[in-house]
Amino acid sequence: MATRFPLPQPDQPAENTMPDPMNDPVLNAYRKSIDNIDAALIHMLAERFRITQAVGQYKAKTAMPPADPGREKRQVQRLRKLAEEADLDPEFSEKFIRFVIDEVIRHHKKARSG
Amino acid sequence: MATRFPLPQPDQPAENTMPDPMNDPVLNAYRKSIDNIDAALIHMLAERFRITQAVGQYKAKTAMPPADPGREKRQVQRLRKLAEEADLDPEFSEKFIRFVIDEVIRHHKKARSG
Repeated sequence: MATRFPLPQPDQPAENTMPDPMNDPVLNAYRKSIDNIDAALIHMLAERFRITQAVGQYKAKTAMPPADPGREKRQVQRLRKLAEEADLDPEFSEKFIRFVIDEVIRHHKKARSG
Repeated sequence: MATRFPLPQPDQPAENTMPDPMNDPVLNAYRKSIDNIDAALIHMLAERFRITQAVGQYKAKTAMPPADPGREKRQVQRLRKLAEEADLDPEFSEKFIRFVIDEVIRHHKKARSG
């Protein structure tokens, strides 16, 4: 059966119509990459918390303080440098690592009091 | 030359002394793993922002709104599920993805007004 009207191109968004984010093939391709990266990030964070959980137990056992401001400062500086090299906003990298460290310290304090 | 006093074991923390986080081989080994994971996280985030930057330009060009609450809800649900499977606190995974999405939307709005 011949098709009477031209079908929309599957690899191009339809023109002259209201954009529909759910059915836009360009946007969907970007979102697939973002979803893959997010899955990797979640698994890296899971592994990071496995290690910091072990650190928390070790620090509690050896009576080391949960937080280590000198170590945190070195981590922030190192990650800002890595971020710059990777064209990521260093301010964001600092906000990110502080966000993660705050969660870790919350866990360490909970492990100590629990 | 014979060593007169027993040297500290390199793979065990010294006992009966004040713990020194800088010179503790157990803690240093954990920290090396954490530093490797953090470098991976920073590079994954850099790649994620490269993609969302392209998404921002594409959305501005096609007059799509910077935020997409339906997509965000699906992302949060998916990552909570992945987090549970990886033994990561789902609440933390939700806080994390919202933290990243907020930064992305801030970038999209800036790209649109700039």
